[in-house]
Amino acid sequence: MSAGDGEEVVLGVDSGGSGLRVALAGTGAGRPLATAACAGPVRTGPAGIDAGHLLEQVLPVARELLARQAPGARVVAAAVGAAGMATLGDRLRAEVPAALAGALGVRRVALAADAVTAYAGALGQRPGAVVAGGTGLIALGTDLGTWRRADGWGHLLGDGGSGAWIGRAGLDAAMRAHDGRRGGSGALLARLEAVFGPASGLPGLLYPRTDRPALLASFAPEVAACAAGDGVAAGILRAAAAHIAEAAAAVCPPPRPKGPRLAAGEPHAPAAPHGPREPHKTYEPYEVALTGGLFKMGEPLLAPLREEFARQVPQARVVRADGDPLEGAVETARALAGDRLRLPSHPTLLFLPGTA
Amino acid sequence: MSAGDGEEVVLGVDSGGSGLRVALAGTGAGRPLATAACAGPVRTGPAGIDAGHLLEQVLPVARELLARQAPGARVVAAAVGAAGMATLGDRLRAEVPAALAGALGVRRVALAADAVTAYAGALGQRPGAVVAGGTGLIALGTDLGTWRRADGWGHLLGDGGSGAWIGRAGLDAAMRAHDGRRGGSGALLARLEAVFGPASGLPGLLYPRTDRPALLASFAPEVAACAAGDGVAAGILRAAAAHIAEAAAAVCPPPRPKGPRLAAGEPHAPAAPHGPREPHKTYEPYEVALTGGLFKMGEPLLAPLREEFARQVPQARVVRADGDPLEGAVETARALAGDRLRLPSHPTLLFLPGTA
Repeated sequence: MSAGDGEEVVLGVDSGGSGLRVALAGTGAGRPLATAACAGPVRTGPAGIDAGHLLEQVLPVARELLARQAPGARVVAAAVGAAGMATLGDRLRAEVPAALAGALGVRRVALAADAVTAYAGALGQRPGAVVAGGTGLIALGTDLGTWRRADGWGHLLGDGGSGAWIGRAGLDAAMRAHDGRRGGSGALLARLEAVFGPASGLPGLLYPRTDRPALLASFAPEVAACAAGDGVAAGILRAAAAHIAEAAAAVCPPPRPKGPRLAAGEPHAPAAPHGPREPHKTYEPYEVALTGGLFKMGEPLLAPLREEFARQVPQARVVRADGDPLEGAVETARALAGDRLRLPSHPTLLFLPGTA
Repeated sequence: MSAGDGEEVVLGVDSGGSGLRVALAGTGAGRPLATAACAGPVRTGPAGIDAGHLLEQVLPVARELLARQAPGARVVAAAVGAAGMATLGDRLRAEVPAALAGALGVRRVALAADAVTAYAGALGQRPGAVVAGGTGLIALGTDLGTWRRADGWGHLLGDGGSGAWIGRAGLDAAMRAHDGRRGGSGALLARLEAVFGPASGLPGLLYPRTDRPALLASFAPEVAACAAGDGVAAGILRAAAAHIAEAAAAVCPPPRPKGPRLAAGEPHAPAAPHGPREPHKTYEPYEVALTGGLFKMGEPLLAPLREEFARQVPQARVVRADGDPLEGAVETARALAGDRLRLPSHPTLLFLPGTA
């Protein structure tokens, strides 16, 4: 596919901890015309995410995609999703809109937290919630009126149920087996020693590193691998599942009545005395999408997660994500271009210059 | 007090995260002749604790104490206790004994982990266990045959029940109240905001710092302050108490029968059919000393701790520490000098050059 002269296209950008990607797409539905990866992740300094470093990588790639896939096309909207946007995105919000306007003539720009592009990729513009889990964990939900956010506070203040959380709990249980405290797991100790060497040397390996959360998270699959035969490992995954569901429950929109509205104080519609019976449903289910590498851990995590969702978020229907955060950026840019953006704007989660 | 010509004295050194202290003492019992604080804590570099930095501070102070308090006395033994000795003490073990021999003529030297000098300060040379709690937490016990160590693995791998552990759990509960997850505490959120400002800004304050465990631990007293009126805070301290008792239980020497030894399989001596009854005791209690700033938190921690010790370590009698780690270093040096060191030597916990 390519777009011809005078056609309208949009740009999506996904800036994450492990890389920076750009997509060029038509304004309609369907897959992007082309995507490209930039050289590396955007630097973050004392003043936050480095807007100049992002632009100097994105602009040449965008120009090349345009020249190759859509010569003569106009870029009518762009959406940039970035990890850390909410807390470290001041320079992006200050510099990127004018730079995109100057370099590519883009007039409509959205600057989104990576959780928002994950949301848009997973659910498009439908109400619901997304749980994005990897090394960390954040939940984001909306009824299309406001955003609700839970967790995502990092490995020392939260990220309950994340890869770092599971790995840390697994290593704690291994060290307990090593020194004979209650709550230890010999199976996890064996995995610790297979991966890291003698247990007593682990503190010396871990603490000098700057990527401690990633190292902790690297042990999470070992916990999952032990869960079938080890009660401690299985308990860690059950606790993780409970924390993940807690985050989802905190951001799910409140239940909405389905079909004929029920009066307050009348939670159950009276059943018809005769005729075929349908399972009684009081509420529309909301879609909750699980995205990110955490959920590739498979059944050892997903089985307790289904139980916890059924218990804590009964109004939710867990769905597969439609697309990834880069596709979410494209979806957001398309919605901007078509004047049909329903996801609510927000000063840091979804910043729309000129509307703030 | 001062020691005269030809008299024998000992040196004790305590090197901790917040400072470096030296004590000069006679070889008998009683308080040191004098103690002095050096300029600052000893540097730790990529090769471990900087032996040269320790010696260049300790030697002049020791010479001055000698000249002032015990001119003409001979230093017959020295003990150096240092935080990090077990994992980062290679250079101390390699360089300090020869340097003390060369500079002060000391022939008998002990190099001890700070937990060992805490033990010797708390219990002298009696069998038992010590729990040293502050920002971190470690337990050390001995039957005078071997050492048993539990926890002390740092804030990401353990230190269960420590100041950092309590503070982190309190901040997690505060962030849960902030974003509406289950398990939150409004009282702890109010304390968080009073201490650190808006909750959403806390990650940006915490993660760039290099003293994250200390910052977490600084919130522990707020948890204790909330415990009387807040179930979540009280629950955190109960869980901390359980972890502290778990560490103590793992290092307490196994119970030893008291009085007339009982045959195996005969746990209770038959009661005398007549005559006055004494409460039946099967085991000698072991002394467990609690040392460090953690236990200054008072009843909110100490009350659940008593319950957990009664449950998990019934053979223990919790005692007040006789003295601090500097006094423990002096005690160790005196025992070396008098050929009566009963604490077991160990390659990293209690290193005695020439006996290893």
